[in-house]
Amino acid sequence: MIRCEGVAAGIKRSGALDLALIDLGRPVACAALFTGSQAAAAPVLVSRAAIADGRARAVVLNSGCANAGTGATGLANAERMQRAAAARLGCGAEDVLVCSTGPIGPQLPIEAIETAISDMGLSGDAWEQAAEAIRTTDTFAKVVAASFGELTVRGMAKGAAMIRPDMATMLAVLTTNADIEFEVLDQSLRDAVTPSFNSLNIDGCQSTNDAVIAFATAEFAADAASVRRLMAEVCMELALMIARDGEETNRLVRLTVVGAVSDESARHVGKAITDSDLVRSSFYGGDPNWGRILQAAAVSNITIDTDAFAVAYEGMVVAEGGCQVSYDTEVIRRLLRGDFAVDVRVGWGPGTATIITTDLTPGYVEFNGAPS
Amino acid sequence: MIRCEGVAAGIKRSGALDLALIDLGRPVACAALFTGSQAAAAPVLVSRAAIADGRARAVVLNSGCANAGTGATGLANAERMQRAAAARLGCGAEDVLVCSTGPIGPQLPIEAIETAISDMGLSGDAWEQAAEAIRTTDTFAKVVAASFGELTVRGMAKGAAMIRPDMATMLAVLTTNADIEFEVLDQSLRDAVTPSFNSLNIDGCQSTNDAVIAFATAEFAADAASVRRLMAEVCMELALMIARDGEETNRLVRLTVVGAVSDESARHVGKAITDSDLVRSSFYGGDPNWGRILQAAAVSNITIDTDAFAVAYEGMVVAEGGCQVSYDTEVIRRLLRGDFAVDVRVGWGPGTATIITTDLTPGYVEFNGAPS
Repeated sequence: MIRCEGVAAGIKRSGALDLALIDLGRPVACAALFTGSQAAAAPVLVSRAAIADGRARAVVLNSGCANAGTGATGLANAERMQRAAAARLGCGAEDVLVCSTGPIGPQLPIEAIETAISDMGLSGDAWEQAAEAIRTTDTFAKVVAASFGELTVRGMAKGAAMIRPDMATMLAVLTTNADIEFEVLDQSLRDAVTPSFNSLNIDGCQSTNDAVIAFATAEFAADAASVRRLMAEVCMELALMIARDGEETNRLVRLTVVGAVSDESARHVGKAITDSDLVRSSFYGGDPNWGRILQAAAVSNITIDTDAFAVAYEGMVVAEGGCQVSYDTEVIRRLLRGDFAVDVRVGWGPGTATIITTDLTPGYVEFNGAPS
Repeated sequence: MIRCEGVAAGIKRSGALDLALIDLGRPVACAALFTGSQAAAAPVLVSRAAIADGRARAVVLNSGCANAGTGATGLANAERMQRAAAARLGCGAEDVLVCSTGPIGPQLPIEAIETAISDMGLSGDAWEQAAEAIRTTDTFAKVVAASFGELTVRGMAKGAAMIRPDMATMLAVLTTNADIEFEVLDQSLRDAVTPSFNSLNIDGCQSTNDAVIAFATAEFAADAASVRRLMAEVCMELALMIARDGEETNRLVRLTVVGAVSDESARHVGKAITDSDLVRSSFYGGDPNWGRILQAAAVSNITIDTDAFAVAYEGMVVAEGGCQVSYDTEVIRRLLRGDFAVDVRVGWGPGTATIITTDLTPGYVEFNGAPS
């Protein structure tokens, strides 16, 4: 029986929900991926240690403060948060993971958090409420569930900016009732994260706090293939929710790179293209400015075949063989009114990848220019 | 005697000046640096070949069309442009360099360019007019001169976006009357470009057409040190002009990285920081959001010492030893009203570099979102 709860611990000045605890009831198989940042936040360091044995019982998460850039005090606070949750549940601290999200720099109000944790009722499975409590600038709480017979996978995530994951992304917690080995859970999570969270690029900024955690509660005998499929579905749906909720963005763009030497190369080029302010500004304008895509692809550190270079917007080819071709400007403008797809050929290799991205908007800059 | 001229060849639909020819009168020592892009434009390929012997007589430049992403036709057109200039001057084609700038994709109107070149009067030294003719979205023509006794260095440049040079940047032409060897000219140019054009980051986008070219006309015996000093001065002044003219930008920010293992590492981290949309959005807001600087520095591929990490805005320390320190919010807001300086410590090594950058503004996105 999973129990979870979201409460207002006073971390956010607004008084909104800001602390969540998810308890699986006993130590179960648990896999996780974390940020590749050199400045990984204190909760990431604590969780990495706790997950080392592939098992965990609970995760405690807060919004309103990233507990990153907080030094030894921050590390001590992350450990206190972990111990407070363990004390509330009556388990060992090493079975509790910790996640934080919010502004980088400030220290956690740790006494308030300890009090709030010890006061938690944990009487039910308030999944939506917990998802609500990990929101920062998200405009909606992100929860997804998928099932196949009795087998279920559900997930929650938060994230709206500083989204350019490399090893993982933002915060996401998944649970499945499947009775599977750690190795199967871990591989299913990695496979699910590659085309979803790891192919998401809102603003080219990788966070200090990214974490994706999956628990398997072993209630239901399941085949690995089904778990993998459901997990991929839930991760992709959460990733799309994050993209749709990108701060002040107007469009979701799926940019597919084909013809790279490997899928990894394709993903690398796709990220370089979608990192470009000029490319994402052209997405904002619905402008098929393929020259900016060429420019961005050509300065990534992956070799491209400029003679094979081709770009299509919504299936309409605007450049091939490295050169512009004539196309109907009016037709393409109409095609690019809402969300759209861009296909980019960078050579004749077998590698391909799709990046889920958004446009760069004046609103995003206004929003992130406002002093916090 | 240097002759130069700027004319309207009809490349720009507006009828503005769009073609310039600079003639040194005879083959002289000439050094150049070009874009590191894999999709280097046709004129870059032609100029690289022409400069191979370290000597050239002239450079022909156009705005309104980058002649990039134009394939074999583009290459043939760049060569026709080179030959037309050589015919007008009565010299060999191999003594003429070619530069283009403007949108990527369209082909040059080469017949119109050939006609305009053959019609050029070349009666004087219209340096300002030539600088005017290479403008794209620049709001003003950029010319600078420096002298030391009879020794002179002058330069012109264009550039307002797609500015994140790596080997060189945008277009710039320098001339000096110094009588110096190619090796001295070349080294002086490289030394001058590193802290100026190569430390400029407007939008993280490296162009397909970047070129910096320097000619030495050997009219005046000069010591290498004086040439180096004047060339550095002219390049820095032109780089600052480009930053001040960054598309729809409001502020110039000098971000200095100290404590890296080498100057090159420092420059690399500085560029990664100033690539960040979130960092440059906080510059727009005048917000001392050092956490975003930590985030961006920590995902560059240069190792940083997070325990040594420190940030100061206009000399006011907001973080040190990897943690936030208390500071007077009101005082710092006042300090960040106009242009400002940011100092970032990433360790205790000897490497340092200053990046010249700008804020990211809603206006930049509006401007670059508008279909061309």
